[in-house]
Amino acid sequence: MTQDLLLKNVRPRGGDAADILIRAGRIEQIAPGIDAPDLPVEDGAGAIAIPGLVEAHTHLDKTVMGMGWYRNAVGTDLRAMIDNERAERTRLSLDPHRQSMRHALALVGAGCTHMRSHVDIDTDHGLTILEGVLSTREKLAGQVEIEIVAFPQSGLLCRPGTLDLLDAALDSGADLVGGLDPAGIDRDPKGHIDAIFELAEKKGRGIDIHLHEPGELGAFSLEMIIERTAALGLQGKVAVSHAFCLGMNDWHRTEALIARLADLDIAILTTGAPSREVPQVTRLQDAGVRMGAGCDGVRDTWSPLNRPDMLDRARIIAMRNNLRSDADLARVMDLVTVGGAAVIGLPGHGLAPGSSADIALVAGETLAEAVVSDAPRPLVIKAGRITARAGHSLTEAP
Amino acid sequence: MTQDLLLKNVRPRGGDAADILIRAGRIEQIAPGIDAPDLPVEDGAGAIAIPGLVEAHTHLDKTVMGMGWYRNAVGTDLRAMIDNERAERTRLSLDPHRQSMRHALALVGAGCTHMRSHVDIDTDHGLTILEGVLSTREKLAGQVEIEIVAFPQSGLLCRPGTLDLLDAALDSGADLVGGLDPAGIDRDPKGHIDAIFELAEKKGRGIDIHLHEPGELGAFSLEMIIERTAALGLQGKVAVSHAFCLGMNDWHRTEALIARLADLDIAILTTGAPSREVPQVTRLQDAGVRMGAGCDGVRDTWSPLNRPDMLDRARIIAMRNNLRSDADLARVMDLVTVGGAAVIGLPGHGLAPGSSADIALVAGETLAEAVVSDAPRPLVIKAGRITARAGHSLTEAP
Repeated sequence: MTQDLLLKNVRPRGGDAADILIRAGRIEQIAPGIDAPDLPVEDGAGAIAIPGLVEAHTHLDKTVMGMGWYRNAVGTDLRAMIDNERAERTRLSLDPHRQSMRHALALVGAGCTHMRSHVDIDTDHGLTILEGVLSTREKLAGQVEIEIVAFPQSGLLCRPGTLDLLDAALDSGADLVGGLDPAGIDRDPKGHIDAIFELAEKKGRGIDIHLHEPGELGAFSLEMIIERTAALGLQGKVAVSHAFCLGMNDWHRTEALIARLADLDIAILTTGAPSREVPQVTRLQDAGVRMGAGCDGVRDTWSPLNRPDMLDRARIIAMRNNLRSDADLARVMDLVTVGGAAVIGLPGHGLAPGSSADIALVAGETLAEAVVSDAPRPLVIKAGRITARAGHSLTEAP
Repeated sequence: MTQDLLLKNVRPRGGDAADILIRAGRIEQIAPGIDAPDLPVEDGAGAIAIPGLVEAHTHLDKTVMGMGWYRNAVGTDLRAMIDNERAERTRLSLDPHRQSMRHALALVGAGCTHMRSHVDIDTDHGLTILEGVLSTREKLAGQVEIEIVAFPQSGLLCRPGTLDLLDAALDSGADLVGGLDPAGIDRDPKGHIDAIFELAEKKGRGIDIHLHEPGELGAFSLEMIIERTAALGLQGKVAVSHAFCLGMNDWHRTEALIARLADLDIAILTTGAPSREVPQVTRLQDAGVRMGAGCDGVRDTWSPLNRPDMLDRARIIAMRNNLRSDADLARVMDLVTVGGAAVIGLPGHGLAPGSSADIALVAGETLAEAVVSDAPRPLVIKAGRITARAGHSLTEAP
């Protein structure tokens, strides 16, 4: 299981053919015609090389992959979907370790080298779901890096005891503090936001909060997140997932919010949800906001529509954002690689000497073609180690 | 090339296993354990059987499939995309016959048995594009039925001579009169709508008009379409494609429009465009509006994002319309089969004795799974004749 490799004949970001020399898990050189007789060689056969895909918003603990078809009769009310899932976890014997292994390895097969996963913490299941995902993270160490957000999916203050569990989750291995619709779910925006920011400050952790609230309600919650980020000096440590309110049709209102996000370096994570108003990627990026992207939950009790594949997601984001030109589609490819990496704290992620050798090969003539095509992924490399071939992880899923 | 067939072991619409007996191109019987020793037999291996997919809004004359990657630098302005395409047709030597063959056969491979294609009619290219698509229709007769809309893509009144060409197109084999953004493109809503309705009345043809105009502008154009449909007694003969204005956020306004569409039996065709406001499928259907769906142009100078596959489109429509439950996803499957068929004038399309044997087999446990999975399509049958296996048409594309 070497971490030295000579990757021959690939096209970095769809450009001219070159070889990539990897030593001790890092990229040492990118140039045509590299000779390194001591190293194992892989022939890229002219495929495009991109930095490893970054799944920056998902839920590894939720999928029902491999458990037969889940018949969804719950509809689309957020509270109903939350309560349905919490009950179904037990009824279906949904094993968080097995399921997160399946989900994570599917992502590895599709070119992912890094993931940020929210993991449900609630008073029914305590930390058992987290333990399953932690065990997956440990088993897949060296193949993929998994960052974990302790996520109060069922509500925080509306279910007493949850805040203590979040605290314990951070002591048990979760990395960040999560939150969820301070008004829409907890019905106490001040209480919810105060609680998660206090916890984050106490533990010295970052925050990633789900904000589905639309329009002015979401904008109000977002303002409170902005205010506390400024007050506590948490610049660069806070991310907001979804932030549908930034898609509302009030240019002055959204422009002011976007400027504040850029000032305080609050990151935005998007799934490009086709059925919702969404923050527009190029608008926010041009204003200086760090953005990443994710597939969200896949094949779970919420919906069967999402897939564990960041290139499938890239196409959806391109469609939702009306990005069609080659230049714009290349930006979407950056969003799902270096964009997400910058949000989860990997600013050096990329194809450059000195970077960790986290590389996916994708078939196609151009980056744009790779984005729109569910392009085949012949090879995935994590820190110089081959983790997947022909779309499948080398580690078999349970 | 028999049109008699015994299709064994399939699950009609995902239900219990049955056999389908086909004689002279029509479904004679659907039941378990049919015995017909005189007929050729196909084993469906338990796949789901659905009525042939209906691509009810596409542009067979536009694709660059098989011509290498087209680098799109034109952006998203509608007029710019129109003018770019008209020029690129010549520069790229885009052969309308060859390209429409490629596009149509890809759709056949993916399970289509019927298509409605708009075909560009403009003063630069005259009827040459139409001739290419007519030749495709003739070559593929018996494999797929292609309905053609004479489409003034570059504008009607703003390019004098186009109206005469539409008239000639209808004499040459086009079936319906097309139109396009009466205000947004032609800058003369009354003139445009009068012209196409007069032509349709004179020739005794139906109408299918592209209406991208958003909000109140689109609603105004839609009102004029409604008024003329009523005045000329064209109930059941008019379809509006896209109709983004029906997605605008004014419930009373849209509700009144939808009621008028249902009264006059004006059909709506959707692509579920993720970047636009769109008519909501279940809302319109529940109000009694006939609806069908299409992929729109695929891999063309407008955008590389669309694919020639109605199940890929079904998933996009489900995402755009927030349809997730098994029941709702089954409705989406109906939209892309019998829904589109009802719009293009095939009310008997379906899996029932007496119907034409137009059948696609799709892999999966349930209809919902087939919608969300780009499900493999092992077999496609058009009027009893096998047209595709394993996702590929038996006729090779040029």
